[in-house]
Amino acid sequence: MTPTTRMPATLAIDIGGANTKAAWLHGDSLRTVSRPFEVWRDPVALAAVLREVAAEAGAAEAVAVTMTAELSDAFRSKREGVAFVLAAAEDALGDVRVLTTAGDLVSLETARARPLDVAAANWVATALAVAGEHPDALLIDVGSTTADIVPIAGGRVAASGRTDLERLLAGELVYTGVLRTNLAAIAPRVPLRGGWCPVASEQFAISADVHLVLGRLEAYGCPTPDGRPATVEFARERIARLVCADAEQLGVGEIDAIAAFLYGEQLRQVEEAARRHALPPAAPVVPVGAGAAMGREVAARLGREVAEVRWNGPAAALAALLAGPQC
Amino acid sequence: MTPTTRMPATLAIDIGGANTKAAWLHGDSLRTVSRPFEVWRDPVALAAVLREVAAEAGAAEAVAVTMTAELSDAFRSKREGVAFVLAAAEDALGDVRVLTTAGDLVSLETARARPLDVAAANWVATALAVAGEHPDALLIDVGSTTADIVPIAGGRVAASGRTDLERLLAGELVYTGVLRTNLAAIAPRVPLRGGWCPVASEQFAISADVHLVLGRLEAYGCPTPDGRPATVEFARERIARLVCADAEQLGVGEIDAIAAFLYGEQLRQVEEAARRHALPPAAPVVPVGAGAAMGREVAARLGREVAEVRWNGPAAALAALLAGPQC
Repeated sequence: MTPTTRMPATLAIDIGGANTKAAWLHGDSLRTVSRPFEVWRDPVALAAVLREVAAEAGAAEAVAVTMTAELSDAFRSKREGVAFVLAAAEDALGDVRVLTTAGDLVSLETARARPLDVAAANWVATALAVAGEHPDALLIDVGSTTADIVPIAGGRVAASGRTDLERLLAGELVYTGVLRTNLAAIAPRVPLRGGWCPVASEQFAISADVHLVLGRLEAYGCPTPDGRPATVEFARERIARLVCADAEQLGVGEIDAIAAFLYGEQLRQVEEAARRHALPPAAPVVPVGAGAAMGREVAARLGREVAEVRWNGPAAALAALLAGPQC
Repeated sequence: MTPTTRMPATLAIDIGGANTKAAWLHGDSLRTVSRPFEVWRDPVALAAVLREVAAEAGAAEAVAVTMTAELSDAFRSKREGVAFVLAAAEDALGDVRVLTTAGDLVSLETARARPLDVAAANWVATALAVAGEHPDALLIDVGSTTADIVPIAGGRVAASGRTDLERLLAGELVYTGVLRTNLAAIAPRVPLRGGWCPVASEQFAISADVHLVLGRLEAYGCPTPDGRPATVEFARERIARLVCADAEQLGVGEIDAIAAFLYGEQLRQVEEAARRHALPPAAPVVPVGAGAAMGREVAARLGREVAEVRWNGPAAALAALLAGPQC
């Protein structure tokens, strides 16, 4: 295929542990494809999934990938995980560029030689997109399991951490999200009957149940912990189990109060992390991701304006980055 | 089989969510059988498992069961879970007695009519055994996922909670244990490099990894979260993942310090719950369970003597209870 327009069509794939997302971009045309694929269940199938989402998204002159899948415990180390993902990418997509945590697009060969520089780099794509539009801002990307909180200063990504570990320590990665977060990891106790009830540390309910019950969820985009329906009624039963109870022992009001408390704890965690970043008073918050509503609520708590960004999500942002600065 | 001795042979089965334990008792002869069986994976197979452990333990004139399996999210409610477990027990074992949270042994018919009275009753068996030997004491039973902390006063079980929910609220059930507890639910952050690192709320590592690394584990009696070996080397890799790192990014000393901190947090949680119970100064702690070493350490922190109990574990205690007061 030869380029027929000024700008080439680009394809970017964000290879996560639970989802694979592709974005195809040609001029103003953007097509995105998302496929649930839990890499820890069947890493071998990754190349096939990449082939599928690439075919569905569209043919392109240039292809780039970024990843977070290497953290999955399907791999003993990040080095092993990165090598596996790169091999699957090459197998499925041929010659691709790989995003680094410094924001560069490097060759497969370079990526292989520097695996820790391309591990968990997908947040950089979104951050670069924000920096291109808002020279001073705070990106808050609340996803299904994690939240990225990235300061942008003087048109540059001003994150102090690059690896996941550094970013956790810096308050730039908060491991809480709107779908898959285990409620037992959000708070050690919940309010109940005038006191505090410690929680059961099982995987009985997840944040999607909380957000569903509170009417804050657009789509329950992951399996339910108990395999039962993703409805408010069943979500309440899952939440009741968090305190070793059931819907017979707890009233609807009691369960919903637990949900409201846990949502508040998630908000508090993201807000605390956001407050660690000093920014000019006029710098807006740019909320993106499945939990953008949470980002907007944090912006209100911080007393900051909210700004939008053209490329929502790492795959689209990376496709734009690959298309070049004119895009 | 007809009774040939003064005391009948008894069989008791403790049906948990992850393990089924049987005890056969005849006079001074005690035989125990434990079978890992995760009821949430295949509830239908429960009757077959009960038949197997009963056959392995031995024939008896009287059979009793107790359970915690009803909390599993294989069941929508405790009522449904209890009914299922009782049906499997009747199918496999015929006419059995069922322990209530009040300490009574009731018929299947009564148990069916009062499901919430027989749900999660297994701690009562151990508590009654302790009460029979130590009129004033604090039972601390640290198991694979939970710890029971039960005050005994004047030879009676002086617990203020009976259901799991009441016991959580009363500090009589602490949802932490030496094997299956998700590390992300033990503490929201761990010490690292002079600061605090928030943890990844995934199921990357469990308390068995912590206790293994610290040399405190007799047996890693559950599956590893990543399916890799239950060795110190692999346990360290799992713990490193708790802060989104791997064994290349963290040193052994750093990983072991995280493990020591998390063990300390578990101890603190059990100690805090134990301190909620006022007891005479001379009342000993009776530590039992797979984590009896933790119970002994808590006793030392409380400045209390440690006492033993003849029947270690709910199944053995229930078999003795069934054999009658003379036992």
